[in-house]
Amino acid sequence: MTEETDKTQEFLADFSAMSAHGATEAGGVDRQAGTDADRATRAWFRELVTAHGGRVVRDAIGNQFGLFELAPDADWVLVGSHLDSQPMAGRFDGAYGVLAGAHAAFRTVEQVRSGQLNAVHNLAVVNWFNEEGSRFTPSMMGSSVYTGTLDLNTALETADRDGVTVAEELAGEIHDEGSVVLDDVAAYAEIHVEQGRILEEAGAAIGLVDRTWGAKKYRVTVLGEQGHTGSTLIRDRQDALYGAALLIVAARQVTEQFEEGLLHTAVSELELAPNSPVTLAREVQINLDLRSPDVEVLARAEGLLAEEIQRIEQRARVSVEQRRTHEWGLVAYPPEGVALAELVAQDLDVPAQRIMTVAGHDSTNMKNVVPTVMLFVPSVEGISHHESESTRDDDMLAGVDMLTGVVARMVGGWPTSTD
Amino acid sequence: MTEETDKTQEFLADFSAMSAHGATEAGGVDRQAGTDADRATRAWFRELVTAHGGRVVRDAIGNQFGLFELAPDADWVLVGSHLDSQPMAGRFDGAYGVLAGAHAAFRTVEQVRSGQLNAVHNLAVVNWFNEEGSRFTPSMMGSSVYTGTLDLNTALETADRDGVTVAEELAGEIHDEGSVVLDDVAAYAEIHVEQGRILEEAGAAIGLVDRTWGAKKYRVTVLGEQGHTGSTLIRDRQDALYGAALLIVAARQVTEQFEEGLLHTAVSELELAPNSPVTLAREVQINLDLRSPDVEVLARAEGLLAEEIQRIEQRARVSVEQRRTHEWGLVAYPPEGVALAELVAQDLDVPAQRIMTVAGHDSTNMKNVVPTVMLFVPSVEGISHHESESTRDDDMLAGVDMLTGVVARMVGGWPTSTD
Repeated sequence: MTEETDKTQEFLADFSAMSAHGATEAGGVDRQAGTDADRATRAWFRELVTAHGGRVVRDAIGNQFGLFELAPDADWVLVGSHLDSQPMAGRFDGAYGVLAGAHAAFRTVEQVRSGQLNAVHNLAVVNWFNEEGSRFTPSMMGSSVYTGTLDLNTALETADRDGVTVAEELAGEIHDEGSVVLDDVAAYAEIHVEQGRILEEAGAAIGLVDRTWGAKKYRVTVLGEQGHTGSTLIRDRQDALYGAALLIVAARQVTEQFEEGLLHTAVSELELAPNSPVTLAREVQINLDLRSPDVEVLARAEGLLAEEIQRIEQRARVSVEQRRTHEWGLVAYPPEGVALAELVAQDLDVPAQRIMTVAGHDSTNMKNVVPTVMLFVPSVEGISHHESESTRDDDMLAGVDMLTGVVARMVGGWPTSTD
Repeated sequence: MTEETDKTQEFLADFSAMSAHGATEAGGVDRQAGTDADRATRAWFRELVTAHGGRVVRDAIGNQFGLFELAPDADWVLVGSHLDSQPMAGRFDGAYGVLAGAHAAFRTVEQVRSGQLNAVHNLAVVNWFNEEGSRFTPSMMGSSVYTGTLDLNTALETADRDGVTVAEELAGEIHDEGSVVLDDVAAYAEIHVEQGRILEEAGAAIGLVDRTWGAKKYRVTVLGEQGHTGSTLIRDRQDALYGAALLIVAARQVTEQFEEGLLHTAVSELELAPNSPVTLAREVQINLDLRSPDVEVLARAEGLLAEEIQRIEQRARVSVEQRRTHEWGLVAYPPEGVALAELVAQDLDVPAQRIMTVAGHDSTNMKNVVPTVMLFVPSVEGISHHESESTRDDDMLAGVDMLTGVVARMVGGWPTSTD
C-alpha cells in the first residue's frame, strides 16, 4: 500500500467513524446543535485532533479549535466548517468540511515537520457551533459570535422550542477553555458540499466559490380571528391558516414568473395559534425566503409578492405583516482567495470552476473579516438536508487534496506572500 | 325588588363571577381542560352548588356532578354542559350551559321543596370534563368516557403537546369521588350558545335542536422529502408544506362549488417536520373537516377533494395519505325531546324554532343513550371560539327559564309521564 493510499483509506475510515455519531437508519445523521449526538461528535473530533498531536480548546459559544503550533507567536490559519446537522439530514453537510480541514491540517503539519514547508503561521482546525440553526435560531451562531455580528449573551440565552437554552446545553460539555483570537487570524479556508447540481452537471471536481446569491428573508405574520371550524359561516371567516396557505402557494407561483434557476423561494417554518382541531387560527407566523443570483430578479419578485399579499388580505379577510429579517445582495468572496484556489487547482490539475453559493456558510461570516477561500465538492443530484445526501469518495478525496494545497500555502505565508 | 328580578340578578352576578376565572383582557376566557384556570372554575362551581344545598362529586375522568336528592332511590335527571374553553375563547360557550343548568336545578329544587312539583327523579347538574379537546384530544372526552365510547384509561393517558397527561392534571384536584351511574339516568338536558347566526337573523329566542349537521373528518398526512430551502432546484423540490398549502386552499375552494351555507370546510390544526428555517418540510399533518346539512353535498365534496388531491400530488411532487377519523350523517335528536321543548316554549310563550347543530356537544353523546333535550340561545353575529363571543342578557335569561321548564318536567316524570 502506498503512502497516498494509506492517507485516502485513513480519511474514508475517519469519515465512516464520524458518521456513526447520530446516525439514522437511512444512512444520514441527526445531530442538531447541543444534542447528545452533537456532543458525541464533538468529543470524537477532540480525540481525533489530539491523536494527531493537536490540542483542542473551546470558546464560550462552543466553537472548537484544534491547535497545531507551527510558528510560535505567529498568526493563525483557520480551516474548518461545522459538525452539527439539520434533523434527519445527510452525513456530508458541514462534517465533511471539518474532517477535510482536519486531514488538510494533518498533512500540512507533516510537511512542516518534514521540512518540506516553512511555516509562517500557526494552524487550527475549527468546528463552528450551531451552523444549522434548526434547533437554536439563528444559523451560523458560532461564527457570528466569533466575528462579532451576534452578541455572545444573546446567543447563550437562545432557547429551543422546549425552553432549553444554548448555555444549558454547552454547560454539560467537558472541554479546555481557549480560542484563537480573531485579531490573530491570518486566513480562513472552508470546504463544503455544493448542495446543488452545477458541478455534477459540468463534470467539475471542485467549485471555487466567488460570490453568494442574493437573498431576502422575512418573518411574516398572518393575523385573522378565531372562530368555530364548523359553525362559523364561510363569509364570516378570517382564517389565518387559509391566508398563510394562499401566501405559501403564491411564493411558489412567483418563481414561475422567471426563467428556471433565477428565483428560489421557500416557506419551511410555520407556527400557528391556537392550533386546535375545532378553532380557526387567529395567527400564523412563517419564515419566507427569496433567493436569486440576480438582484433585479429579487427586487421584482418582492414587488410581485407584495401585490399578491394585498389580494390575499382581501380574499382571506386577514392582515399580513411582513418584517425583513435578512437581506444581502451578490456578495463577493475575496478575489485573492479565489485566485489562490485557482492556482492550487491548476497545480493539482483538478477540473475546477467558479461557482456561486446559494446557501450561507460560516465562511460567509469569515470572509468579511479575514482573507478567505471557500471550496465546493459536488453533491450527487444536488440533494441536501436529506438523509440520502451524498458526495462520491473520489470527489471527497480530491477536495481534501485541494484544501491541503490551499492550507499549506496559507501556512506558508499567503496572502502576504504567495508562491 | 320582585322575586323574579332577584333571580335574574343572581344569575347575571353568578355569570360574571364565573367569567372571572381564566378571564382574558379582551373579555373572553382561556381555560383549557386541566389548567389552573379550569381547576379554579371547577372549584367555584363546587362552591356554588354546595351553597345551594347540593353535594358535588367527581368521577375518574373529571366529570363533576352536583347532586340534589329529591326522590330517594329514583333515577336521575342530568342537566349541564362544560366549563372548559378553547384558548382565547368566549365566556359563554359551555359555561353558560353549566350555569343555566345549575340555576334551572336550583329553581326546580325550590319548586319541589315548596310543594309545587312532585319529584319522581333526582336531579344533578353536570360539568363534563374537556369538551373542547384543544389541549387533550379528542373533544367531548368526559361525556365520551361516561357514555362508553371512549376508554377511561386511553383518556387518562392522553398527553398534551408538552407530554403532560390528563391523569396528571386531574390528580391535583381536591374532590369527593362519586358519579351518577349511567344506568340510573332518566333524562339529560343541555343548553348552549348557537355559535351561528340563524336564531339572531330569525328573531327567535330559543333553538330547539332536532338534528346534527353531517360531518366527515380526516387526518391528512402530506409526505415530501427534506431539502435545502435555498439550494434545492425548484423542479427537484418535494415540499410537504407547499403540498399542504395547496390542500388548505383547495378545501376552501370546494365550498365555492355549493350554495352558501351548504358546505363548511376547515383546516385548523397543523404539524410539520422538521419545521426548520432552512429545510423544506418532509411531512405535514393536518386535520381536515367537511360539514354539511346535506349528506349528498358531503359525498360530492369528498369526491371533488379526492380529485384535487391527485392534482396536488402531481403538482407538489408529494404523496397524500388520508385517514377518515370521524363520520356521521344527519343524526336526529330524540323527537320526544324536541316535542317536550316545544311544549315548554309554548307554555312560556317564548319565540322558538327548530334548528340543526353544526358543532358537536356533550348532548351528542348523551342523546344516544338517554332521552335528551338540547336547546340553543342566540349568539351575537354568530361569533364563536373567540373572545368577543356574546349572547345578550335577555337571551341568557330566557334560556334559563326554558331550561327550568324542561328540567322541572323531567324531574316530574318525563319521558314516562308528561303533563
